[in-house]
Amino acid sequence: MVSFGLVLMTATGIAQQPARIVSPEVTADRRVTFRLLAPQAREILLSGEFMPGSKPFEKDANGLWTVTIGPLEPEIYHYNVSIDGVRTIDPNNPDVKTGSTPSTLSSILEVRGAQPAFYDAQTAEHGEVRSLRYTSKSLGSERRLTVYLPPEYDRDPQARYPVLYLLHGANADENAWHRLGRVNLILDNLRPTGRAKPFIVVMPFGYGVPPNLPAQPGENTAKFGRDLIEDVIPLIESRFRTIADRDHRALVGLSMGGGEALTIGLNHLELFSHVGGFSAAVGPAAAFSKTYASLIADGKTSNQKLRLLWVGCGKEDGLFDASKNFSEFLTQHHVRHTFHESSGAHTWMVWRRYLNEIAPLLFQSGQ
Amino acid sequence: MVSFGLVLMTATGIAQQPARIVSPEVTADRRVTFRLLAPQAREILLSGEFMPGSKPFEKDANGLWTVTIGPLEPEIYHYNVSIDGVRTIDPNNPDVKTGSTPSTLSSILEVRGAQPAFYDAQTAEHGEVRSLRYTSKSLGSERRLTVYLPPEYDRDPQARYPVLYLLHGANADENAWHRLGRVNLILDNLRPTGRAKPFIVVMPFGYGVPPNLPAQPGENTAKFGRDLIEDVIPLIESRFRTIADRDHRALVGLSMGGGEALTIGLNHLELFSHVGGFSAAVGPAAAFSKTYASLIADGKTSNQKLRLLWVGCGKEDGLFDASKNFSEFLTQHHVRHTFHESSGAHTWMVWRRYLNEIAPLLFQSGQ
Repeated sequence: MVSFGLVLMTATGIAQQPARIVSPEVTADRRVTFRLLAPQAREILLSGEFMPGSKPFEKDANGLWTVTIGPLEPEIYHYNVSIDGVRTIDPNNPDVKTGSTPSTLSSILEVRGAQPAFYDAQTAEHGEVRSLRYTSKSLGSERRLTVYLPPEYDRDPQARYPVLYLLHGANADENAWHRLGRVNLILDNLRPTGRAKPFIVVMPFGYGVPPNLPAQPGENTAKFGRDLIEDVIPLIESRFRTIADRDHRALVGLSMGGGEALTIGLNHLELFSHVGGFSAAVGPAAAFSKTYASLIADGKTSNQKLRLLWVGCGKEDGLFDASKNFSEFLTQHHVRHTFHESSGAHTWMVWRRYLNEIAPLLFQSGQ
Repeated sequence: MVSFGLVLMTATGIAQQPARIVSPEVTADRRVTFRLLAPQAREILLSGEFMPGSKPFEKDANGLWTVTIGPLEPEIYHYNVSIDGVRTIDPNNPDVKTGSTPSTLSSILEVRGAQPAFYDAQTAEHGEVRSLRYTSKSLGSERRLTVYLPPEYDRDPQARYPVLYLLHGANADENAWHRLGRVNLILDNLRPTGRAKPFIVVMPFGYGVPPNLPAQPGENTAKFGRDLIEDVIPLIESRFRTIADRDHRALVGLSMGGGEALTIGLNHLELFSHVGGFSAAVGPAAAFSKTYASLIADGKTSNQKLRLLWVGCGKEDGLFDASKNFSEFLTQHHVRHTFHESSGAHTWMVWRRYLNEIAPLLFQSGQ
């Protein structure tokens, strides 16, 4: 039921959306209606991961604008509204995607299916998510990172765990894999199945150069790499019960963080045995031979060291060709790897699935 | 420098704000300029905690809207823009205040002074913030809570700590005291001064009835109280090294959570020795005698049990008279308490200060 008889006024006299306008509203058949009260607006458009292009809202006599889409597949989607040409969030939806730059700002729509999804809370036992601040000596600044500890972490104070270092993409931050990627729930859900080993996940802030400042090519990855290797890993290994060797370290990232994970990980096989890139921003193919010189210099040794090299990209992703080129480069140089072509674009829908797919592949052979 | 020659287009064809529009921009004299590109919009207004009412943006020939305010006192402010009558966030500012209802959505403006504020990171040593999920048996649902552990928590595995249960207000959630209230940095900063004892802070989700559902009077507090007493406290005392007695438990909240803290705390002096309400929604004075019957039945015993009863409110807060009435009610019944009248309205600016003021008063006499 939608009622908007009561328009609240703020202290400043600007009309807020009435308390009882529901947007988005998902009905049992998984159609979704978006609503916005805007008597003075001339054009309101909806855009989102559930459809190409945009769709106009329609205005009624009271100035309530409405648009209905679907039915949609059960999924978590991001969307925006455009009010007279300004792209913003849905002001009636408290669930907002935030990050390190304004372009990340979107509203979140969750469409539930008959059964809980792999990213929904399914088990009673949950790991803990921790937010830490630390001083990065290499960058000369204070930074934050997020840590996920498996449900059993506190049960046995002697047990030690492998660590997945998991990197976000451009415009995001150290909370993205938790809040948008649901890393905690995905891994919580895998535990009772026994398919994945228990491991710690460390999610640093992935910018070496602040996102609002210009960077030279390679500078961001180089600076972030120093922070990761000189500050983050020592901090984690002193603070948590980790197994502190290369067999028990993985480095995986998405988009910008995928480029970082591949560049840093494949140039530091003395530190990492598992490396992965999701929809990775791998850069131009012409630079591969230089960027990955140490990897291809001795393919046989690299293959012995790499327990997993996983590259995945959705076919509707603008970075698909880059990932494909990178996979071909690896093949040319006889570097064993998995190239995972999937459906999907450059979205969290794909990255949540990829995490769920690779988690059971991590740390299976290491002791 | 602001450049907007490059207008990015999303996949959907809706113009995003150009990457290099800076809003808000704070200059050295603490004036603040807000900018928004909106060639089609007819009216854009700014409202925020830095001024009463609203102020119009002005449009230039390129459709860039600008407004400048200040100079402002160093502070963290929340603000909104209204685009052709629709109240939303500043689409160029990634820093967004989120919560459990849409009315919470605002942009965040931080104006720094020459010296770091009491809520800025000042020390190298930081406590940890943890996000936990738990099953509330009393409410029959899965819920989240946030825990702050003092910097020394991991140093001595035998040490045990008092606990402050700290409640958010309406429209907020279990992250509010961390993200908006800066509880972690405020307490981190107090540690080296020795003025505050080290303690754990537990920040549960404060709604007993979900915020989008109607509740009978008292129902929300009653249901939340069961969750707090039957689920949250046992969970915390089994999971963390707490001192699990009334002398070492405090219950404090703001606004809706202030009403909850006073109602639950003052009716459970067998559980809590320190109780506080910031800008508390204490309800009508006519109900005080009934709500606090056990407190006033034997004022002398209540005074013996209460190590701290702290009620604070800003004079520009719509709830000021309610707090004042409550203080007078306590005085009438000879219940010892502090009534702290301050400047300020119903905002986080006030609540951060109150936390900083009461932290040194907690757990000083208990052993």
